[in-house]
Amino acid sequence: MISILGAGSWGLALSLILLEKGNEVTVWCHDEKEKEEILLYRENKRCLPNIKLPLELKFTTSMEQAIKGAEIVIFAVPSMAIRAVAKQVKNFISKEAIIINVSKGIEKETNYLLSEVINEELPNRLAVLSGPSHAEEVARQIPTTVVATSLSIQVAKEIQELFMTNYFRVYTSTDLIGVEIGGALKNVIALAIGVIDGVGYGDNTKAAVMTRGMAEICRLGIAMGGKAETFAGLTGMGDLIVTCTSKHSRNRRCGELIGQGYSIKDAIKKVNMVVEGITTAYGAYALMKKYNVEMPILEAIYDGLENDNFSSDVIEKLMNREKKMENV
Amino acid sequence: MISILGAGSWGLALSLILLEKGNEVTVWCHDEKEKEEILLYRENKRCLPNIKLPLELKFTTSMEQAIKGAEIVIFAVPSMAIRAVAKQVKNFISKEAIIINVSKGIEKETNYLLSEVINEELPNRLAVLSGPSHAEEVARQIPTTVVATSLSIQVAKEIQELFMTNYFRVYTSTDLIGVEIGGALKNVIALAIGVIDGVGYGDNTKAAVMTRGMAEICRLGIAMGGKAETFAGLTGMGDLIVTCTSKHSRNRRCGELIGQGYSIKDAIKKVNMVVEGITTAYGAYALMKKYNVEMPILEAIYDGLENDNFSSDVIEKLMNREKKMENV
Repeated sequence: MISILGAGSWGLALSLILLEKGNEVTVWCHDEKEKEEILLYRENKRCLPNIKLPLELKFTTSMEQAIKGAEIVIFAVPSMAIRAVAKQVKNFISKEAIIINVSKGIEKETNYLLSEVINEELPNRLAVLSGPSHAEEVARQIPTTVVATSLSIQVAKEIQELFMTNYFRVYTSTDLIGVEIGGALKNVIALAIGVIDGVGYGDNTKAAVMTRGMAEICRLGIAMGGKAETFAGLTGMGDLIVTCTSKHSRNRRCGELIGQGYSIKDAIKKVNMVVEGITTAYGAYALMKKYNVEMPILEAIYDGLENDNFSSDVIEKLMNREKKMENV
Repeated sequence: MISILGAGSWGLALSLILLEKGNEVTVWCHDEKEKEEILLYRENKRCLPNIKLPLELKFTTSMEQAIKGAEIVIFAVPSMAIRAVAKQVKNFISKEAIIINVSKGIEKETNYLLSEVINEELPNRLAVLSGPSHAEEVARQIPTTVVATSLSIQVAKEIQELFMTNYFRVYTSTDLIGVEIGGALKNVIALAIGVIDGVGYGDNTKAAVMTRGMAEICRLGIAMGGKAETFAGLTGMGDLIVTCTSKHSRNRRCGELIGQGYSIKDAIKKVNMVVEGITTAYGAYALMKKYNVEMPILEAIYDGLENDNFSSDVIEKLMNREKKMENV
């Protein structure tokens, strides 16, 4: 049995693949109201509209029921909920179960990557699934590629086998740090891209910030033990492209509102969903200081958030660094 | 004096920067009619509409007049014209002049990179200027970043100094092969992205093909002597992003028409401009064979062009490769 923690768009999209491949799947819902609505319509109208959820897909709000007997437990909850959920899971999970984290971010209090948080709470074998994958497109069986990552290549291969279909192509990797840093920090760059859109700059500027932004992320990732090639791959460049060029990204959208002159508070209010990029910017800033890495774009975003004053600071800071070689 | 060969959008956009920085600039036009129209309206209505060209900017169709006394000669002509123009330039260029190539592609007959073509015809010091830079945005002074590349870092620095403004940021590099391979092959990937758009696939698929496509380009570039980090930079990933996400890219547009069912011939006709990506696909295919590099996306595009039958081959070939690790 496979347990998916979280009935948001990504958890549900993954549940459809796993069902299709003949697995028994239970989705844990955070609250009773969400569960009742899903059972009533067989659809999550807010998170994944117009996608019918098959009758075989089970839903529960009981953690015990969700976890007991599960061979695979998938974490698909917002980053801020990861530790609390892990603590609940601890009471019921089997030692042999494999955990898959599909959430992205940095824990606010500790600046830990999410796999570090889970690892601290649970001794299980762990993998991360990441890559350029809008849930809505996966649910519609649009060709998509992702990477299954685990320190154990055997675990990564099991997860690859578990998800692989003709439209959902899964690669493997063992660079857990590289994959998680790329996944978390792309939301910060998406925020910056939104600001640039809001201010009214062009495609040249955005391509520059995406490229130089990825170079920064890569520098931090390498300092933390990740591999350069991971950042050039699907979970790095690929995921960054999807997030920064999508009109649906809430991080990009929040940045756009800020660029248009909204205060940060009002922008978040208007987006009306969790904007992971803001919390992640603070976590990344702390990691940048800790590992002593040069990240001018991140610094510009951090300053903008701290002072609630962006104007065109992000771009200015990028453009006005002294003349230098690329890749230095 | 600076001579710009070619009165297209990119040559003119660069002329505006150089004028603004106090240089004397002469633009060589291919034919008298083009020159007369530009002089009449002080605008190139077809290539760079709504951008006024200052009176100080000189235009000529005489190669002698354009080249004599020029300290800098900029090649901004279509790739297929590079060799013929270089042969004309030879008669008038001073030994000390620096050549800057801003065109992208592979010569059809020889499969040479454009700097190799120029080098074969002219013994001058050479640099390449490349990066994510729509001419229309540069002419409107939208913040843009590019890379000045030469085997001689001194030459690269001179070119950096020549172009640098507060909105046009120039980095330096010495990886000529990496920069030119990235610049040429992005047009082939843009063609594939267009096909995917035309067929109706989603952002996930496009991000996958852009990322895996860049991995292929990087493999070829490294086999030819380029550096991996160049492909992660502005002239690689950056330029690929701008070209693949722009509605204005004629390569992407041509692919889109093909994906919608047009024959290649009709698609080119409808685009009504040179589609560099098609010629470049053939050149790249020859280089792939020569250097014995695995490039499944390029092969899919080549097969599609050869058979005038794309359907969803590009995506199928990407998705159905055997399960493997990323970055292998």
